[in-house]
Amino acid sequence: MISRSLITLLAVALTSANCFSQAPQTAVLDDFKPSTLNQPGQEYPQVNSQGYARFRIKAPQADSVKVSLGLGGRGGTRLTKGDDGFWTGTTEGPMDEGFHYYHLTVDGGTFNDPGTLNYYGSVRWESGIEIPAHDQDFYALKAVPHGNVQQILFPSKSTNTSRRAYVYTPPGYEKDKSRKYPVLYLQHGWGEDETAWSNQGHANLVMDNLIAEGKIKPFLIVMTYGMTNEVKFGKIREFKIDPFQTVLVDELIPYVDANFRTITNRDNRAMAGLSMGGMETKMITLNKPEVFGYYGLLSGGVYAPDDLKDKAKPKLIFLSCGSKERPDGVQKAAADLKGAGYNAVSYISDKTAHEFQTWRRSLHELAPLLFK
Amino acid sequence: MISRSLITLLAVALTSANCFSQAPQTAVLDDFKPSTLNQPGQEYPQVNSQGYARFRIKAPQADSVKVSLGLGGRGGTRLTKGDDGFWTGTTEGPMDEGFHYYHLTVDGGTFNDPGTLNYYGSVRWESGIEIPAHDQDFYALKAVPHGNVQQILFPSKSTNTSRRAYVYTPPGYEKDKSRKYPVLYLQHGWGEDETAWSNQGHANLVMDNLIAEGKIKPFLIVMTYGMTNEVKFGKIREFKIDPFQTVLVDELIPYVDANFRTITNRDNRAMAGLSMGGMETKMITLNKPEVFGYYGLLSGGVYAPDDLKDKAKPKLIFLSCGSKERPDGVQKAAADLKGAGYNAVSYISDKTAHEFQTWRRSLHELAPLLFK
Repeated sequence: MISRSLITLLAVALTSANCFSQAPQTAVLDDFKPSTLNQPGQEYPQVNSQGYARFRIKAPQADSVKVSLGLGGRGGTRLTKGDDGFWTGTTEGPMDEGFHYYHLTVDGGTFNDPGTLNYYGSVRWESGIEIPAHDQDFYALKAVPHGNVQQILFPSKSTNTSRRAYVYTPPGYEKDKSRKYPVLYLQHGWGEDETAWSNQGHANLVMDNLIAEGKIKPFLIVMTYGMTNEVKFGKIREFKIDPFQTVLVDELIPYVDANFRTITNRDNRAMAGLSMGGMETKMITLNKPEVFGYYGLLSGGVYAPDDLKDKAKPKLIFLSCGSKERPDGVQKAAADLKGAGYNAVSYISDKTAHEFQTWRRSLHELAPLLFK
Repeated sequence: MISRSLITLLAVALTSANCFSQAPQTAVLDDFKPSTLNQPGQEYPQVNSQGYARFRIKAPQADSVKVSLGLGGRGGTRLTKGDDGFWTGTTEGPMDEGFHYYHLTVDGGTFNDPGTLNYYGSVRWESGIEIPAHDQDFYALKAVPHGNVQQILFPSKSTNTSRRAYVYTPPGYEKDKSRKYPVLYLQHGWGEDETAWSNQGHANLVMDNLIAEGKIKPFLIVMTYGMTNEVKFGKIREFKIDPFQTVLVDELIPYVDANFRTITNRDNRAMAGLSMGGMETKMITLNKPEVFGYYGLLSGGVYAPDDLKDKAKPKLIFLSCGSKERPDGVQKAAADLKGAGYNAVSYISDKTAHEFQTWRRSLHELAPLLFK
């Protein structure tokens, strides 16, 4: 049952990975600017106001340079070599708003674009490009009070390691030393790691901005690595939740509660995750309903009323995905849960697929609903 | 005067960048293991017990793949293609212990090794490789209490930006809410950024281990970006300290003092830096002797007694470099300072050059001398 859900999820990920927003247009506007994710001083890649991306790679003796955009290598852009030894090319159409992973194939080898910053996805550090979104203001770096993102190293007996997690603490956390906070445990997707929600997702900036606008009660977010048993993309049936559940529930949560000012009960503890992290959220919340009071699955499957019966009732179930995924399934599941008496909310991200813009928006929608 | 010092410094950096420890040996031992800085699951690059590095890159249609090790492109290793489409090669000799930057040249283009993690150096994210050191225990990740590394975003009116810094807080910082701590402001080198001391330098682990052994009084370390005015490698004469001094002294220090539990006086505030960060330390401590009580230059020049006269006397001057740099200059400067009545200490890192192993060791030597 759980294995089949995971396979379905990954199939959705693959079929919805086409990140082009529409068919090619006739006129490509010549207003290209460097992507905001470029390394300091790098002019390429560039993005125009329609969402086209243009690449430029130096490799004077190469025979072939290709750009692979999105999961599964779809959205490829073949570059052509100029007399100056630079390979250039523009995407066939405008891309979806938001963040996209990509890499280069240079003479048959896989490399990153030396122009951009790297982001961990697909079990490697990939190149990243950002298509400016109409709603990018909610995750922009603004002149508001900023929380911190703390790297912690917590002891894990079950894996015999010191494991890394990141903890977002809201602005003012240091000043009012008596205040205690609820906590959201927030998981990344397959092939990503504990850096994804801050780097790709801007979770800290989403929170800073919501807090500055008075739209949410401040809370902590804890992000750790969820691929404890190194699940391979083709071996998803072998995935077992137990090793990660032990790390999260028996090791990380007690460490966070001992080292941060948290409210240590179910009504002040949420779990959510994207894609594979959503499946982990579903498994762990159903196994440990006494630990978490709020559940969020972002492009990560759904709960059925039957899953929840005879268990402590969650205070909220949040289900979301992009409009280019399977919004009907998410909406139907939320309706079924509501019909069965649960507080369920669905959210569909407009014109986005199984990518981070869907999840930035989902966090922005989820955060105000938590810890009411 | 200051410009000439910087030029001398960079000349030292370039001439001491040969990271090979000795002439080639006759027998290369076949005990290669993956470098500890490889991306998850990556088998290459590898390192053997003598310090040789072996590279393996997939690029079946490429005509040429070269590895450039160290500053200035010295220490190149040309790879040869096998029938399987992989290019392989081993360094001509053993490399120095510790961390080294490198990159690939594939058919004339500059790319990173897809096998390794990336580290910001030379104004780009470079590949990194780690040659196990005989003294690596002092920066190893051990089962001891760990401090946190916090990303902060502080407002900077002078640059009209929110700027990033990292703050190391020692183990126990959260628990004893009344305790206040001294602070070390610690700067990276040219082409690096605020991530260098944690990622390449393991500053947090150096501190965790020293604290666990009871060898130092816990303090905070603050690391921010010191290339405020984007000094170019060939335009070092244009470097002005004022923009960064304003960010550090007028913006970052007040923010840290307002948002962390610090002891806010000169006797509990140190500044140190490596290479260009050492030159910044020298300029700023001489301009603002009332702000900092402890000075550290790590492969970053020296103070002469004349520099310090008629100024508030520092409680400590720490000067260091690698034995492959110019140890005589550092030792003579410390002797001159001692002769003039200053508390000066010199440290020479054995068999290392202008690289991070020198600076890891220097921090390890400096920390116990601070805030006495």
